[in-house]
Amino acid sequence: MTAAIIDGKAFAGEIRERVANQVARLKEMDIVPGLAVVLVGDDPASEIYVRNKNRQTEEAGMASFEHRLGEDTEEQELVELVRRLNADPQVHGILVQLPLPDHIDENLVINAIDPAKDVDGFHVINAGRLATGQSAMVPCTPLGCLLMLRDRLGDLSGREAVVIGRSNIVGKPMAQLLLRENCTVTVCHSRTRDIADVVRRGEIVVAAVGRRDFVPADWIRRGATVIDVGINRIDAPEKGEGKTRLVGDVQFDAVKDVADAITPVPGGVGPMTIACLLANTVTACCLSHGLPAPQDLTV
Amino acid sequence: MTAAIIDGKAFAGEIRERVANQVARLKEMDIVPGLAVVLVGDDPASEIYVRNKNRQTEEAGMASFEHRLGEDTEEQELVELVRRLNADPQVHGILVQLPLPDHIDENLVINAIDPAKDVDGFHVINAGRLATGQSAMVPCTPLGCLLMLRDRLGDLSGREAVVIGRSNIVGKPMAQLLLRENCTVTVCHSRTRDIADVVRRGEIVVAAVGRRDFVPADWIRRGATVIDVGINRIDAPEKGEGKTRLVGDVQFDAVKDVADAITPVPGGVGPMTIACLLANTVTACCLSHGLPAPQDLTV
Repeated sequence: MTAAIIDGKAFAGEIRERVANQVARLKEMDIVPGLAVVLVGDDPASEIYVRNKNRQTEEAGMASFEHRLGEDTEEQELVELVRRLNADPQVHGILVQLPLPDHIDENLVINAIDPAKDVDGFHVINAGRLATGQSAMVPCTPLGCLLMLRDRLGDLSGREAVVIGRSNIVGKPMAQLLLRENCTVTVCHSRTRDIADVVRRGEIVVAAVGRRDFVPADWIRRGATVIDVGINRIDAPEKGEGKTRLVGDVQFDAVKDVADAITPVPGGVGPMTIACLLANTVTACCLSHGLPAPQDLTV
Repeated sequence: MTAAIIDGKAFAGEIRERVANQVARLKEMDIVPGLAVVLVGDDPASEIYVRNKNRQTEEAGMASFEHRLGEDTEEQELVELVRRLNADPQVHGILVQLPLPDHIDENLVINAIDPAKDVDGFHVINAGRLATGQSAMVPCTPLGCLLMLRDRLGDLSGREAVVIGRSNIVGKPMAQLLLRENCTVTVCHSRTRDIADVVRRGEIVVAAVGRRDFVPADWIRRGATVIDVGINRIDAPEKGEGKTRLVGDVQFDAVKDVADAITPVPGGVGPMTIACLLANTVTACCLSHGLPAPQDLTV
């Protein structure tokens, strides 16, 4: 058995195409979805993310607003910017790039965002809506994972799903989404005993641990669908001195002989995350104009 | 093997004693914790709950405020009452008895409560806080279940917990709490396949389905701790014509030969729920006065 490789890059392209179609439809109504991205400080990784987000936003025909603030920006100044963006009718989505500098309370800033514009889905009200089965802005990475799972498996109802990791950004919302899809959901984590046995129950396994090679092949049930959320940068001397490459949380080469389908790293979940950010922005834009959320962009 | 019967009635008495001790301590600071209960319409079951809540509130030395509104009360009128209670410094906890009449949007009313006074823990912000591991007002029934589990088992870290049912009131917050306690948590429900096998994994099983005799003995792993949240009223002709009695979701007589410990119905989870309501009110009162939450009343 060799697993099908789920091509997240191609699927993300498809999502972006759906986004572009919706954007074109909205433009006929003189509506241009707008995404504001706020970057505080000059973390190089964050810089790259923000640049990619802006580029893809514009490529989809949407308006992109970039706000850069210095490392020593006061919390209150950032909150005031968020409030101005909340009030700006051209802005339908607001993303504050994390992590923020230590002197700023991330929760406070995130919760200052209008929940209707919270396209990252990190606002406590969106977390609460998701946790209680109400419609919510869903965090982009688990949203992307779910869209891939649905695309691959169709109806997920009744399947055994195992989520490894319990972060607020991936593991917990992923578990909520899978439960909403009527999966039987198990969340395991660093304190889980006999984790191999637990993961081996999963017809669906979502690995979101942040540790390279964490999941070996003998943890995976034959025929499972494996979603690897990990993005771990490691040295790659074979590519030349000082070079690095990205690997996931799953031992890809071994697991692909056991699984039915698996996402690669890079080229799996990663590209889906930004595509889902655009999707959430279009959804937020539609809802703010009293239009229904596009069915093919949300869950 | 015969299971220990977890005496929820006695433990609830202990919780009420802890509450009374905290109330006495607060009175020395001229603070009287107050709970406002709002009842709309004249559902007989709700009447009984409300009466019990008021009585136990007063027995614990707290102030009890009862508000009764007619069946045909307008939603806006109810929301205005909630706002007045939000603003009332004598009121530290607000409970709107559910269900509400059909013409009133329950979510809208619950979300009108100040989250700091939401002692039922149903406000979307408290659901979000719980879902993201922040301190929150925790719904009373799962809070009671967790206090019993901790009292029985001590540290829950690493244990396999299975929650049967995924309601917003019990199943989902219970799963969040168990995850926070570092259990490996599985949520199963009506769409779960091979539910017997799934439940049999549980060292801790919480049954919150609302169907009498739903959980038979052969679903229970030997030595498990079983918490039965079900409160199902059935005919009891043996007690006389027209008489009824309460039974849980678990086949108690058979399961007690397999489990290490089990809660009975009645006398298990039920009494804990009101005790935890009082506990949440004292916690809310302390927090509103800038005092720390009493460690023995919360999780």
